[in-house]
Amino acid sequence: MKTIGIIVNGATGRICSTQHLRGALVPIRDEGGLLVGDERVMPRLLLVGRDEDRLGKVARELGIDEWTTDLDAALADPSFEVFFDAAATSQRPQVLRKAIAAGKHIYTEKPVAPSVTEGLALLDLMRKAGIRHGCVEDKLFLPGFRKLAYLRDIGFFGRVISFRLEFGWWVFDGENTAAQRPSWNYRSTGGGGLTLDMYPHWRYLIEGILGPVERLVSANRTAMPRRIDESGQAYDVDVDDTASNILEMQSGATGSIQSSWATRVRRDDLVTFQVDGTHGSAVATLHRCHVQSLAETPKLPGFNANVDIKADYREGWGEVGDLEPYKNAYRMGWEAYLRHLSIGTPPAATFEDGIRDVQFAEACNLSAREKRWIEMEALG
Amino acid sequence: MKTIGIIVNGATGRICSTQHLRGALVPIRDEGGLLVGDERVMPRLLLVGRDEDRLGKVARELGIDEWTTDLDAALADPSFEVFFDAAATSQRPQVLRKAIAAGKHIYTEKPVAPSVTEGLALLDLMRKAGIRHGCVEDKLFLPGFRKLAYLRDIGFFGRVISFRLEFGWWVFDGENTAAQRPSWNYRSTGGGGLTLDMYPHWRYLIEGILGPVERLVSANRTAMPRRIDESGQAYDVDVDDTASNILEMQSGATGSIQSSWATRVRRDDLVTFQVDGTHGSAVATLHRCHVQSLAETPKLPGFNANVDIKADYREGWGEVGDLEPYKNAYRMGWEAYLRHLSIGTPPAATFEDGIRDVQFAEACNLSAREKRWIEMEALG
Amino acid sequence: MKTIGIIVNGATGRICSTQHLRGALVPIRDEGGLLVGDERVMPRLLLVGRDEDRLGKVARELGIDEWTTDLDAALADPSFEVFFDAAATSQRPQVLRKAIAAGKHIYTEKPVAPSVTEGLALLDLMRKAGIRHGCVEDKLFLPGFRKLAYLRDIGFFGRVISFRLEFGWWVFDGENTAAQRPSWNYRSTGGGGLTLDMYPHWRYLIEGILGPVERLVSANRTAMPRRIDESGQAYDVDVDDTASNILEMQSGATGSIQSSWATRVRRDDLVTFQVDGTHGSAVATLHRCHVQSLAETPKLPGFNANVDIKADYREGWGEVGDLEPYKNAYRMGWEAYLRHLSIGTPPAATFEDGIRDVQFAEACNLSAREKRWIEMEALG
Amino acid sequence: MKTIGIIVNGATGRICSTQHLRGALVPIRDEGGLLVGDERVMPRLLLVGRDEDRLGKVARELGIDEWTTDLDAALADPSFEVFFDAAATSQRPQVLRKAIAAGKHIYTEKPVAPSVTEGLALLDLMRKAGIRHGCVEDKLFLPGFRKLAYLRDIGFFGRVISFRLEFGWWVFDGENTAAQRPSWNYRSTGGGGLTLDMYPHWRYLIEGILGPVERLVSANRTAMPRRIDESGQAYDVDVDDTASNILEMQSGATGSIQSSWATRVRRDDLVTFQVDGTHGSAVATLHRCHVQSLAETPKLPGFNANVDIKADYREGWGEVGDLEPYKNAYRMGWEAYLRHLSIGTPPAATFEDGIRDVQFAEACNLSAREKRWIEMEALG
Repeated sequence: MKTIGIIVNGATGRICSTQHLRGALVPIRDEGGLLVGDERVMPRLLLVGRDEDRLGKVARELGIDEWTTDLDAALADPSFEVFFDAAATSQRPQVLRKAIAAGKHIYTEKPVAPSVTEGLALLDLMRKAGIRHGCVEDKLFLPGFRKLAYLRDIGFFGRVISFRLEFGWWVFDGENTAAQRPSWNYRSTGGGGLTLDMYPHWRYLIEGILGPVERLVSANRTAMPRRIDESGQAYDVDVDDTASNILEMQSGATGSIQSSWATRVRRDDLVTFQVDGTHGSAVATLHRCHVQSLAETPKLPGFNANVDIKADYREGWGEVGDLEPYKNAYRMGWEAYLRHLSIGTPPAATFEDGIRDVQFAEACNLSAREKRWIEMEALG
Repeated sequence: MKTIGIIVNGATGRICSTQHLRGALVPIRDEGGLLVGDERVMPRLLLVGRDEDRLGKVARELGIDEWTTDLDAALADPSFEVFFDAAATSQRPQVLRKAIAAGKHIYTEKPVAPSVTEGLALLDLMRKAGIRHGCVEDKLFLPGFRKLAYLRDIGFFGRVISFRLEFGWWVFDGENTAAQRPSWNYRSTGGGGLTLDMYPHWRYLIEGILGPVERLVSANRTAMPRRIDESGQAYDVDVDDTASNILEMQSGATGSIQSSWATRVRRDDLVTFQVDGTHGSAVATLHRCHVQSLAETPKLPGFNANVDIKADYREGWGEVGDLEPYKNAYRMGWEAYLRHLSIGTPPAATFEDGIRDVQFAEACNLSAREKRWIEMEALG
Repeated sequence: MKTIGIIVNGATGRICSTQHLRGALVPIRDEGGLLVGDERVMPRLLLVGRDEDRLGKVARELGIDEWTTDLDAALADPSFEVFFDAAATSQRPQVLRKAIAAGKHIYTEKPVAPSVTEGLALLDLMRKAGIRHGCVEDKLFLPGFRKLAYLRDIGFFGRVISFRLEFGWWVFDGENTAAQRPSWNYRSTGGGGLTLDMYPHWRYLIEGILGPVERLVSANRTAMPRRIDESGQAYDVDVDDTASNILEMQSGATGSIQSSWATRVRRDDLVTFQVDGTHGSAVATLHRCHVQSLAETPKLPGFNANVDIKADYREGWGEVGDLEPYKNAYRMGWEAYLRHLSIGTPPAATFEDGIRDVQFAEACNLSAREKRWIEMEALG
Repeated sequence: MKTIGIIVNGATGRICSTQHLRGALVPIRDEGGLLVGDERVMPRLLLVGRDEDRLGKVARELGIDEWTTDLDAALADPSFEVFFDAAATSQRPQVLRKAIAAGKHIYTEKPVAPSVTEGLALLDLMRKAGIRHGCVEDKLFLPGFRKLAYLRDIGFFGRVISFRLEFGWWVFDGENTAAQRPSWNYRSTGGGGLTLDMYPHWRYLIEGILGPVERLVSANRTAMPRRIDESGQAYDVDVDDTASNILEMQSGATGSIQSSWATRVRRDDLVTFQVDGTHGSAVATLHRCHVQSLAETPKLPGFNANVDIKADYREGWGEVGDLEPYKNAYRMGWEAYLRHLSIGTPPAATFEDGIRDVQFAEACNLSAREKRWIEMEALG
């Protein structure tokens, strides 16, 4: 049994407490640690937060004895070798610098940095300090996208021709019923905006399954310019809540993304990712994946304008079954990172991968602002 | 009873004989003419074609007595005041010039001209000659898109935010089973290419329902570069069979188009046109139109990554019923044009509208070639 | 227009009159001949049979003017260059020798000869005489097996692992209800027996789709040894009505055939042909073809002996759609043979292919009789 | 109340703990013993295993007080008169010799011995020692096969003509998703191979329902020669994973078996066992049994090659209902064996039956290896 001490910064945040703690680290602890080779690796957790009451409550609920509001003291404790940051993104560079200076290994939520430039500076520091870094890229572990990656691995698609990723639903503006998303999502001062929020995810989903993006062009807009916040006050939205993108891939495939918090959903799921290849197509959702192989592809004669033939085009699709016991996506990331620390196998995503996620969102915003195609150069 | 003499040029072509003749002009004739105000307007048809046998066969089947292979003689006959051109598009400018010179009114299939420049030159000639012109824009008369226009008219959408138009299906490459489309569709020498073929339609559908396009950016590609033609010979495809576009509308709405002959269909129809507005959304297909009003819009909490909630997002949509006896789309165009000739009401589409269709396809191809946004200026 | 004179011997037989004449040659004639390149090839038919009344009736019904009961006179007429034999199989060698001597091209029903030895002797005569030969192998043209061949062509299977062909249904013994098959099928004197009847078909189906058979082992038996014939007389069956075979293919795949006229049908069709490959499996029936690609293959945990999970394993299969206008299978053979005569393209099956069919049935019977594996050597 | 002491060797194995203990012996104990005549027979269990922790855990969960890792001590205890062996098959002969020497009655899992020769030697020792022996043949007690035996008993089949047993599903090779079966199943060193694993079951199913097999011919092969094991290492498969067999029965019936871990399932269940008789046919699955009596047999005219008649041949079959409260199949074996010990009625299967199971698998492998028919002689 080997113990790895982990400082969990921002422990009371929603994603951190429900997913990273309750969904990942606590179950690993309760199962007697993670089996890595012949050895069990046991996480020892030190929770850090700003609100003592909420922190204590989370710690008690999860049966964690160690917690503090003093980040510096936590970083000074040599029995914790890993620093995990899930706290406010605006503080991230400053906090990571401290952790690097304290010689901690780093695992961090997204975005890893507010800009590519800042991210590369942090990466440089980590490399010089010999730090083992990783970042959270959870969506690739959702069952639907695992199945999509499986299809690529078994050669199902033949040559990939194109893809389309569609995301979104209707987020109420708060006027007559409360909005389902916090108002900071709609304000630049809070780091809001659909592109900044979601496109880091689209980056690793797309490149993780289909390889490097070569270039892209984007259009962003504010579909709902006036909203009501949590206190009932109207405010002007100064970020995008709708975006449309065309991508060209290094492989020669093309793709499009449609994302919006102001659309209504008439498709298989809140996210759908269709990949068309010469030998088959797939439409992945969060948990499922439908397929139509070339063998099953119907020979449609084109459309009949005079008569409604009432075809249901969903009927000609099969489904990929469950191929593994799909675990919590955040836990998958933690398990890979704990293995990385123990035996050096690659983490699910490095800090550099996280910078690429930032680069993608930056490129989309730049393209939209300057109305031109942007090349997605390899990082530094 | 008033008779209008119509020269039908290219009468043996598939669309002309099945849709314009059998689906539109012949039924109008057989019903005793079109009622315009108090008067019945009876079309008198003179078929023109190049193959005497086929022409005679079509004429006999449709009970038409007058037909000829001599276009010049037809144009010289003063008892026919309208010239309708459905013959080969490569000959169109030359043929229209003759008809203008002969003082005929002009109704024509798309594309009205091989380029905007040529189209404007023809339009100038028509205007100077005081000719009444119209062109075929049939898709707007399909039931699904009529219903979409109806929704706009009743204010269903509130402010339109965005739209997405998706088109296509799998066209086999001819290798192991014959292709469903002729090989000229895939060769520049035959005037092929997905954009040239379909985007004139998308222009009038989109602008006809949502108003002027301001600018656009496009990516085209050849998804299937090698195909087998009708004689079993392999050939290289030198035109686009897949296209992706982002549009910005004068209204402030944004939109996207995805068109492909190399995609597999998992959506409501071979064409779907979704419009999202502040007060409701609609998804039109060729014959149907589903709607979700603001009142019916579910308050989705965002997606649940841990559990498959097995939602069927199609369930929350209603449907627009049939509101009129939807006639053959080509007949609708002819009725409007005959009324235009008789009492001066506007045709369904003028020759100028047809030039706008050409302008749109040109803009898409230019944008794709030069990798930049193109402004859709108002015509001359 | 080019005319090809064809002597149709055995014109009043059921298969000949319904399939070869009414289903193939007469429609080709009525459509103005077969288009071969730029030329139309028109069959001119001379019917030959033994029963003048029945022959005249068939000829009148099909609008054929030329018919005779004098085979020798027919063969002596130089305006008929092709001899097609669909008459009694026991007479075939003798009749074909006459036709070869008369310099006719040869097209023949199966079996092409009563033994491989006799078949090779006939082939040798044909080759020396420069005769263009072909034989009927119709089942490969059934839609289900065309689709199976298509799947092979598009690489659907990956590496083929195994196949199983199942055939048969319950043929009543005539005791309490009349049998559905003639009694000669059950007597060696009439050339009866399941293996002789059906295994020539299985040969070209299996080798036509999956390549050469290397060796086989067979068991035959008489499941119903006592039957009642058409006149109500009981007789002893002295041929096989049930057969079981294991095959090893040159490709390394293995296969099995189960054929019986004494089985009850609980499968997709009266014939099913399942092919399993690394990348997908298919089950073809006469007209349809279901598929399950590797992507759709469920990860079954094995069987649950304690609980009936009520799975329907047919649900996970898709279907190959119609890919061509499937014509009468016999017509496909005739069209290929007429093209072979006109422009030298290969016929659907040569006389040599027909000998291979005989070889296969002989090998099955020999294996069953001597209880040993038989090698399927290449023909002389 | 009479107590029978049973040493359970290999108690922590999956089948032993879940089926023999939790599914059979523990419920018998908890219900106050098995009623045999007027007497209740109560099993007293002594668990033996090698891993003290796992053994204690199983014992506690099942409420069993007596357990030990010392097999010799267990055998030396005269209060336990029965020795049940479910431990590693490689140790079986040695362990059984000890138990025989200790005068225990013997009940054992399959295979009862690594070879027929060894099995006969053990049987000889048991007979000389007057030992009451039995072995596990559980599948005959599955509801579907009980129903099949019932059909035979009521004379449903008339004379049995033929049977076909089909087994298998797709076992993934571990390349892109983990395999569903352990790698030792695919290695000769671990005693793997489809024939060794499954054909002992097919022996008692077939002979148990249809009487003695006279002779057989088999073909085995390795469909998937390269697999990935539990640790992610590739390995070469050196045993069979696909087998095909033809059988001739003493009754004159013939049969075939198709078994494969590399096939996709389009039939009623993972195992189907069809029996055709003069008066009716049945298709049994694990839990159900469908029948078509002669009365229900349709008079099919043969197949229609020209038209798809869209028949569903499953519709003409009825179903055998539940005729008894089907108990756990392993419990049925234990109850019969306990009765055998108490009042001398025959066990479900003797040790000699178990040797016959081994003989069958040996014969299949020998036939495949030497490519010849093998006679299934009566034992000893």
